[in-house]
Amino acid sequence: MKAGAVEVGHGSKVTQRGVNRGMSILDLFLRIIAIIATLGSAIAMGTTNETLPFFTQFVRFRAKYSDLPTFTFFVVANAIVSAYLLLSLGMSIFHIMRSRAQASRIALIFFDAAMMALLTAGASASAAIVYLAHKGNTKTNWFPICQQYDSFCHRTSGSLVGSFIGIIIFILLVLLSALSLSRR
Amino acid sequence: MKAGAVEVGHGSKVTQRGVNRGMSILDLFLRIIAIIATLGSAIAMGTTNETLPFFTQFVRFRAKYSDLPTFTFFVVANAIVSAYLLLSLGMSIFHIMRSRAQASRIALIFFDAAMMALLTAGASASAAIVYLAHKGNTKTNWFPICQQYDSFCHRTSGSLVGSFIGIIIFILLVLLSALSLSRR
Repeated sequence: MKAGAVEVGHGSKVTQRGVNRGMSILDLFLRIIAIIATLGSAIAMGTTNETLPFFTQFVRFRAKYSDLPTFTFFVVANAIVSAYLLLSLGMSIFHIMRSRAQASRIALIFFDAAMMALLTAGASASAAIVYLAHKGNTKTNWFPICQQYDSFCHRTSGSLVGSFIGIIIFILLVLLSALSLSRR
Repeated sequence: MKAGAVEVGHGSKVTQRGVNRGMSILDLFLRIIAIIATLGSAIAMGTTNETLPFFTQFVRFRAKYSDLPTFTFFVVANAIVSAYLLLSLGMSIFHIMRSRAQASRIALIFFDAAMMALLTAGASASAAIVYLAHKGNTKTNWFPICQQYDSFCHRTSGSLVGSFIGIIIFILLVLLSALSLSRR
Protein backbone atom coordinates (compact mmCIF):
# COMPACT_ATOMS: atom_id res chain seq x y z
CA MET A 1 0.00 0.00 0.00
CA LYS A 2 2.72 2.37 1.02
CA ALA A 3 4.91 1.41 -1.94
CA GLY A 4 1.96 2.14 -4.23
CA ALA A 5 1.56 5.61 -2.78
CA VAL A 6 5.23 6.34 -3.30
CA GLU A 7 4.96 5.11 -6.87
CA VAL A 8 1.99 7.37 -7.58
CA GLY A 9 3.85 10.29 -6.03
CA HIS A 10 6.86 9.56 -8.23
CA GLY A 11 4.62 9.21 -11.28
CA SER A 12 2.95 12.60 -10.74
CA LYS A 13 6.38 14.17 -10.28
CA VAL A 14 7.50 12.74 -13.62
CA THR A 15 4.27 13.96 -15.25
CA GLN A 16 4.75 17.44 -13.79
CA ARG A 17 8.30 17.57 -15.09
CA GLY A 18 6.96 16.50 -18.49
CA VAL A 19 4.36 19.28 -18.46
CA ASN A 20 7.02 21.81 -17.45
CA ARG A 21 9.25 20.67 -20.30
CA GLY A 22 6.28 20.86 -22.69
CA MET A 23 5.63 24.45 -21.64
CA SER A 24 9.30 25.34 -22.11
CA ILE A 25 9.27 23.84 -25.62
CA LEU A 26 6.10 25.81 -26.42
CA ASP A 27 7.90 28.92 -25.12
CA LEU A 28 10.82 28.27 -27.50
CA PHE A 29 8.43 27.67 -30.39
CA LEU A 30 6.48 30.91 -29.73
CA ARG A 31 9.71 32.89 -29.53
CA ILE A 32 10.81 31.60 -32.94
CA ILE A 33 7.46 32.64 -34.47
CA ALA A 34 7.79 36.06 -32.80
CA ILE A 35 11.29 36.51 -34.24
CA ILE A 36 10.00 35.80 -37.75
CA ALA A 37 7.04 38.15 -37.26
CA THR A 38 8.97 41.12 -35.86
CA LEU A 39 11.95 40.72 -38.19
CA GLY A 40 9.53 40.48 -41.11
CA SER A 41 7.83 43.69 -39.94
CA ALA A 42 11.14 45.51 -39.63
CA ILE A 43 12.29 44.43 -43.08
CA ALA A 44 8.94 45.10 -44.76
CA MET A 45 8.82 48.62 -43.34
CA GLY A 46 12.53 49.28 -43.80
CA THR A 47 12.47 48.50 -47.49
CA THR A 48 9.36 50.57 -48.23
CA ASN A 49 10.12 52.98 -51.02
CA GLU A 50 7.86 54.34 -53.71
CA THR A 51 8.74 56.70 -56.53
CA LEU A 52 5.81 58.11 -58.47
CA PRO A 53 6.00 57.75 -62.26
CA PHE A 54 5.70 61.51 -62.87
CA PHE A 55 8.01 64.34 -61.81
CA THR A 56 8.59 68.02 -62.40
CA GLN A 57 11.85 69.74 -63.20
CA PHE A 58 12.60 70.30 -59.52
CA VAL A 59 10.72 67.70 -57.59
CA ARG A 60 10.73 63.96 -57.84
CA PHE A 61 7.83 62.50 -55.83
CA ARG A 62 9.23 59.83 -53.64
CA ALA A 63 8.06 58.25 -50.40
CA LYS A 64 10.34 56.35 -48.06
CA TYR A 65 9.65 54.98 -44.60
CA SER A 66 12.18 57.42 -43.15
CA ASP A 67 10.11 60.41 -44.28
CA LEU A 68 7.99 59.79 -41.22
CA PRO A 69 9.93 59.60 -37.92
CA THR A 70 7.30 57.27 -36.47
CA PHE A 71 8.06 54.65 -39.11
CA THR A 72 11.77 54.91 -38.32
CA PHE A 73 10.89 54.27 -34.67
CA PHE A 74 8.82 51.29 -35.80
CA VAL A 75 11.78 49.75 -37.65
CA VAL A 76 14.15 50.34 -34.72
CA ALA A 77 11.68 48.95 -32.15
CA ASN A 78 11.05 45.81 -34.21
CA ALA A 79 14.76 45.28 -34.80
CA ILE A 80 15.55 45.64 -31.07
CA VAL A 81 12.74 43.27 -30.10
CA SER A 82 13.77 40.61 -32.60
CA ALA A 83 17.41 40.86 -31.45
CA TYR A 84 16.23 40.45 -27.83
CA LEU A 85 14.10 37.44 -28.81
CA LEU A 86 17.08 35.86 -30.55
CA LEU A 87 19.16 36.24 -27.37
CA SER A 88 16.31 34.94 -25.22
CA LEU A 89 16.27 31.68 -27.21
CA GLY A 90 19.36 30.62 -25.24
CA MET A 91 17.46 31.23 -22.00
CA SER A 92 14.49 29.30 -23.34
CA ILE A 93 16.65 26.28 -24.24
CA PHE A 94 18.21 26.47 -20.75
CA HIS A 95 14.68 26.26 -19.28
CA ILE A 96 13.91 23.14 -21.33
CA MET A 97 16.93 21.45 -19.77
CA ARG A 98 16.44 22.82 -16.25
CA SER A 99 12.73 23.06 -15.63
CA ARG A 100 13.24 24.11 -11.98
CA ALA A 101 15.13 27.32 -12.75
CA GLN A 102 13.57 30.28 -10.94
CA ALA A 103 15.67 33.44 -11.08
CA SER A 104 16.20 33.26 -14.83
CA ARG A 105 12.45 32.88 -15.40
CA ILE A 106 11.73 35.98 -13.31
CA ALA A 107 14.34 37.95 -15.27
CA LEU A 108 12.81 36.70 -18.51
CA ILE A 109 9.24 37.67 -17.52
CA PHE A 110 10.45 41.18 -16.63
CA PHE A 111 12.33 41.72 -19.89
CA ASP A 112 9.46 40.18 -21.87
CA ALA A 113 7.07 42.72 -20.35
CA ALA A 114 9.44 45.61 -21.11
CA MET A 115 10.01 44.45 -24.70
CA MET A 116 6.27 44.02 -25.17
CA ALA A 117 5.81 47.66 -24.16
CA LEU A 118 8.45 48.75 -26.71
CA LEU A 119 6.90 46.66 -29.50
CA THR A 120 3.38 47.90 -28.71
CA ALA A 121 4.61 51.49 -28.69
CA GLY A 122 6.15 51.16 -32.15
CA ALA A 123 3.21 49.29 -33.63
CA SER A 124 0.45 51.54 -32.31
CA ALA A 125 2.27 54.79 -33.06
CA SER A 126 2.69 53.59 -36.66
CA ALA A 127 -0.94 52.48 -36.76
CA ALA A 128 -1.99 56.02 -35.80
CA ILE A 129 0.10 57.47 -38.64
CA VAL A 130 -1.11 54.86 -41.15
CA TYR A 131 -4.70 55.67 -40.18
CA LEU A 132 -3.97 59.35 -40.80
CA ALA A 133 -2.36 58.56 -44.17
CA HIS A 134 -5.49 56.66 -45.19
CA LYS A 135 -8.21 58.92 -43.82
CA GLY A 136 -6.54 62.26 -43.20
CA ASN A 137 -8.11 64.71 -40.77
CA THR A 138 -10.23 67.62 -41.96
CA LYS A 139 -10.13 69.50 -38.63
CA THR A 140 -6.36 69.84 -38.69
CA ASN A 141 -6.05 70.06 -42.50
CA TRP A 142 -3.95 66.92 -42.72
CA PHE A 143 -4.84 65.40 -46.07
CA PRO A 144 -4.69 61.68 -46.82
CA ILE A 145 -1.61 60.76 -48.84
CA CYS A 146 -2.70 57.26 -49.76
CA GLN A 147 -4.40 58.36 -52.96
CA GLN A 148 -1.01 59.35 -54.36
CA TYR A 149 1.23 56.89 -52.60
CA ASP A 150 -0.94 53.82 -52.90
CA SER A 151 1.72 51.12 -52.82
CA PHE A 152 3.60 52.92 -50.01
CA CYS A 153 0.42 52.87 -47.92
CA HIS A 154 -0.30 49.22 -48.57
CA ARG A 155 3.22 48.22 -47.65
CA THR A 156 3.32 50.21 -44.41
CA SER A 157 -0.14 48.98 -43.36
CA GLY A 158 0.83 45.39 -44.07
CA SER A 159 4.07 45.59 -42.12
CA LEU A 160 2.07 46.34 -38.94
CA VAL A 161 0.59 42.84 -38.93
CA GLY A 162 3.82 41.13 -37.86
CA SER A 163 4.20 43.51 -34.95
CA PHE A 164 0.69 42.87 -33.67
CA ILE A 165 1.25 39.11 -33.91
CA GLY A 166 4.41 39.71 -31.85
CA ILE A 167 2.41 41.55 -29.16
CA ILE A 168 -0.08 38.68 -28.80
CA ILE A 169 2.80 36.18 -28.56
CA PHE A 170 4.42 38.27 -25.82
CA ILE A 171 1.21 38.20 -23.75
CA LEU A 172 1.17 34.40 -24.14
CA LEU A 173 4.87 34.19 -23.19
CA VAL A 174 4.25 36.13 -19.97
CA LEU A 175 1.35 33.77 -19.17
CA LEU A 176 3.49 30.69 -19.90
CA SER A 177 6.31 31.94 -17.68
CA ALA A 178 3.83 32.64 -14.87
CA LEU A 179 2.43 29.12 -15.20
CA SER A 180 5.93 27.60 -15.14
CA LEU A 181 6.85 29.63 -12.06
CA SER A 182 3.76 28.41 -10.20
CA ARG A 183 4.37 24.71 -11.03
CA ARG A 184 7.52 23.82 -9.19
CA MET B 1 20.22 20.84 18.15
CA LYS B 2 17.25 19.45 16.33
CA ALA B 3 14.82 21.77 18.10
CA GLY B 4 17.00 24.71 17.09
CA ALA B 5 16.89 23.68 13.44
CA VAL B 6 13.10 23.44 13.55
CA GLU B 7 12.91 26.84 15.17
CA VAL B 8 15.11 28.38 12.46
CA GLY B 9 12.94 26.69 9.83
CA HIS B 10 9.82 28.10 11.42
CA GLY B 11 11.41 31.53 11.69
CA SER B 12 12.36 31.63 8.01
CA LYS B 13 8.82 30.56 7.07
CA VAL B 14 7.40 33.46 9.07
CA THR B 15 9.92 35.83 7.47
CA GLN B 16 8.98 34.55 4.00
CA ARG B 17 5.30 35.05 4.71
CA GLY B 18 6.12 38.57 5.88
CA VAL B 19 8.03 39.30 2.65
CA ASN B 20 5.14 37.91 0.61
CA ARG B 21 2.67 40.12 2.47
CA GLY B 22 4.98 43.09 1.97
CA MET B 23 5.06 42.48 -1.77
CA SER B 24 1.27 42.19 -1.87
CA ILE B 25 0.92 45.49 -0.02
CA LEU B 26 3.37 47.11 -2.47
CA ASP B 27 1.24 45.66 -5.29
CA LEU B 28 -1.88 47.31 -3.83
CA PHE B 29 -0.05 50.60 -3.39
CA LEU B 30 1.26 50.60 -6.99
CA ARG B 31 -2.23 49.84 -8.31
CA ILE B 32 -3.67 52.84 -6.47
CA ILE B 33 -0.99 55.12 -7.97
CA ALA B 34 -1.71 53.66 -11.43
CA ILE B 35 -5.44 54.33 -11.01
CA ILE B 36 -4.74 57.97 -10.18
CA ALA B 37 -2.30 58.30 -13.12
CA THR B 38 -4.52 56.72 -15.78
CA LEU B 39 -7.74 58.32 -14.54
CA GLY B 40 -5.94 61.67 -14.46
CA SER B 41 -4.78 61.14 -18.05
CA ALA B 42 -8.28 60.25 -19.23
CA ILE B 43 -9.83 63.27 -17.54
CA ALA B 44 -7.09 65.68 -18.68
CA MET B 45 -7.45 64.56 -22.29
CA GLY B 46 -11.25 64.26 -22.16
CA THR B 47 -11.75 67.82 -20.98
CA THR B 48 -9.37 69.36 -23.53
CA ASN B 49 -11.16 72.07 -25.42
CA GLU B 50 -9.84 75.28 -26.89
CA THR B 51 -11.73 77.99 -28.71
CA LEU B 52 -9.62 80.60 -30.44
CA PRO B 53 -10.48 84.26 -29.63
CA PHE B 54 -11.12 85.16 -33.28
CA PHE B 55 -13.74 83.82 -35.68
CA THR B 56 -15.21 84.50 -39.08
CA GLN B 57 -18.87 84.68 -40.03
CA PHE B 58 -18.95 80.98 -40.87
CA VAL B 59 -16.20 79.32 -38.91
CA ARG B 60 -15.46 79.30 -35.23
CA PHE B 61 -11.98 77.92 -34.61
CA ARG B 62 -12.31 75.28 -31.98
CA ALA B 63 -10.20 72.27 -31.04
CA LYS B 64 -11.52 69.37 -29.00
CA TYR B 65 -9.86 66.05 -28.18
CA SER B 66 -12.55 64.25 -30.21
CA ASP B 67 -11.43 66.02 -33.40
CA LEU B 68 -8.66 63.43 -33.55
CA PRO B 69 -9.84 59.80 -33.34
CA THR B 70 -6.54 58.78 -31.76
CA PHE B 71 -7.21 61.03 -28.77
CA THR B 72 -10.66 59.47 -28.38
CA PHE B 73 -8.97 56.06 -28.33
CA PHE B 74 -6.57 57.40 -25.71
CA VAL B 75 -9.43 58.46 -23.42
CA VAL B 76 -11.25 55.13 -23.88
CA ALA B 77 -8.08 53.07 -23.28
CA ASN B 78 -7.20 55.00 -20.12
CA ALA B 79 -10.76 54.73 -18.81
CA ILE B 80 -10.87 50.96 -19.42
CA VAL B 81 -7.47 50.45 -17.76
CA SER B 82 -8.38 52.49 -14.69
CA ALA B 83 -11.67 50.59 -14.36
CA TYR B 84 -9.75 47.32 -14.59
CA LEU B 85 -7.26 48.51 -11.97
CA LEU B 86 -10.12 49.44 -9.66
CA LEU B 87 -11.55 45.93 -9.98
CA SER B 88 -8.11 44.37 -9.50
CA LEU B 89 -7.78 46.09 -6.11
CA GLY B 90 -10.11 43.44 -4.69
CA MET B 91 -7.79 40.72 -6.01
CA SER B 92 -4.80 42.54 -4.58
CA ILE B 93 -6.40 42.75 -1.11
CA PHE B 94 -7.24 39.03 -1.37
CA HIS B 95 -3.54 38.34 -2.02
CA ILE B 96 -2.53 40.29 1.09
CA MET B 97 -4.75 38.00 3.16
CA ARG B 98 -3.88 34.76 1.33
CA SER B 99 -0.27 34.96 0.30
CA ARG B 100 -0.27 31.38 -1.01
CA ALA B 101 -2.92 31.97 -3.69
CA GLN B 102 -1.69 30.74 -7.08
CA ALA B 103 -4.42 30.61 -9.72
CA SER B 104 -5.61 34.14 -9.02
CA ARG B 105 -2.05 35.47 -9.33
CA ILE B 106 -1.64 33.81 -12.73
CA ALA B 107 -4.95 35.29 -13.92
CA LEU B 108 -3.84 38.68 -12.64
CA ILE B 109 -0.44 38.56 -14.38
CA PHE B 110 -2.18 37.67 -17.68
CA PHE B 111 -4.74 40.49 -17.47
CA ASP B 112 -2.04 42.92 -16.31
CA ALA B 113 -0.01 42.13 -19.44
CA ALA B 114 -3.05 42.56 -21.70
CA MET B 115 -4.05 45.85 -20.06
CA MET B 116 -0.48 47.09 -20.32
CA ALA B 117 -0.63 46.46 -24.07
CA LEU B 118 -3.88 48.45 -24.32
CA LEU B 119 -2.50 51.35 -22.28
CA THR B 120 0.76 51.43 -24.27
CA ALA B 121 -1.18 51.39 -27.53
CA GLY B 122 -3.27 54.41 -26.52
CA ALA B 123 -0.33 56.35 -25.11
CA SER B 124 2.08 55.82 -27.98
CA ALA B 125 -0.51 56.39 -30.72
CA SER B 126 -1.35 59.70 -29.06
CA ALA B 127 2.33 60.51 -28.68
CA ALA B 128 2.77 60.05 -32.44
CA ILE B 129 -0.11 62.46 -33.13
CA VAL B 130 1.11 64.99 -30.55
CA TYR B 131 4.57 64.89 -32.16
CA LEU B 132 2.95 65.57 -35.53
CA ALA B 133 0.92 68.45 -34.08
CA HIS B 134 4.11 69.99 -32.73
CA LYS B 135 6.51 69.40 -35.61
CA GLY B 136 4.31 68.66 -38.63
CA ASN B 137 5.76 66.80 -41.57
CA THR B 138 6.93 68.58 -44.69
CA LYS B 139 7.08 65.47 -46.88
CA THR B 140 3.40 64.71 -46.45
CA ASN B 141 2.29 68.37 -46.19
CA TRP B 142 0.92 67.92 -42.69
CA PHE B 143 1.44 71.29 -41.02
CA PRO B 144 1.96 71.74 -37.29
CA ILE B 145 -1.19 72.99 -35.57
CA CYS B 146 0.41 73.89 -32.26
CA GLN B 147 1.17 77.45 -33.31
CA GLN B 148 -2.55 78.17 -33.43
CA TYR B 149 -3.82 75.79 -30.79
CA ASP B 150 -1.14 76.33 -28.20
CA SER B 151 -3.08 75.51 -25.05
CA PHE B 152 -4.71 72.50 -26.76
CA CYS B 153 -1.26 71.12 -27.56
CA HIS B 154 0.09 71.66 -24.07
CA ARG B 155 -2.88 69.94 -22.51
CA THR B 156 -2.77 66.90 -24.80
CA SER B 157 1.01 66.53 -24.40
CA GLY B 158 0.73 66.78 -20.63
CA SER B 159 -2.02 64.21 -20.41
CA LEU B 160 0.34 61.58 -21.88
CA VAL B 161 2.51 61.65 -18.75
CA GLY B 162 0.00 59.79 -16.58
CA SER B 163 -0.30 57.04 -19.14
CA PHE B 164 3.44 56.49 -19.35
CA ILE B 165 3.66 56.35 -15.54
CA GLY B 166 0.92 53.71 -15.74
CA ILE B 167 2.96 51.63 -18.23
CA ILE B 168 6.03 51.63 -15.97
CA ILE B 169 3.87 50.61 -12.98
CA PHE B 170 2.39 47.73 -15.01
CA ILE B 171 5.88 46.38 -15.79
CA LEU B 172 6.67 46.52 -12.06
CA LEU B 173 3.36 44.79 -11.23
CA VAL B 174 4.18 41.91 -13.60
CA LEU B 175 7.61 41.60 -11.97
CA LEU B 176 6.08 41.65 -8.46
CA SER B 177 3.55 38.96 -9.37
CA ALA B 178 6.32 36.80 -10.86
CA LEU B 179 8.37 37.19 -7.66
CA SER B 180 5.35 36.28 -5.51
CA LEU B 181 4.65 33.20 -7.63
CA SER B 182 8.22 31.99 -7.25
CA ARG B 183 8.31 32.43 -3.42
CA ARG B 184 5.85 29.93 -2.13
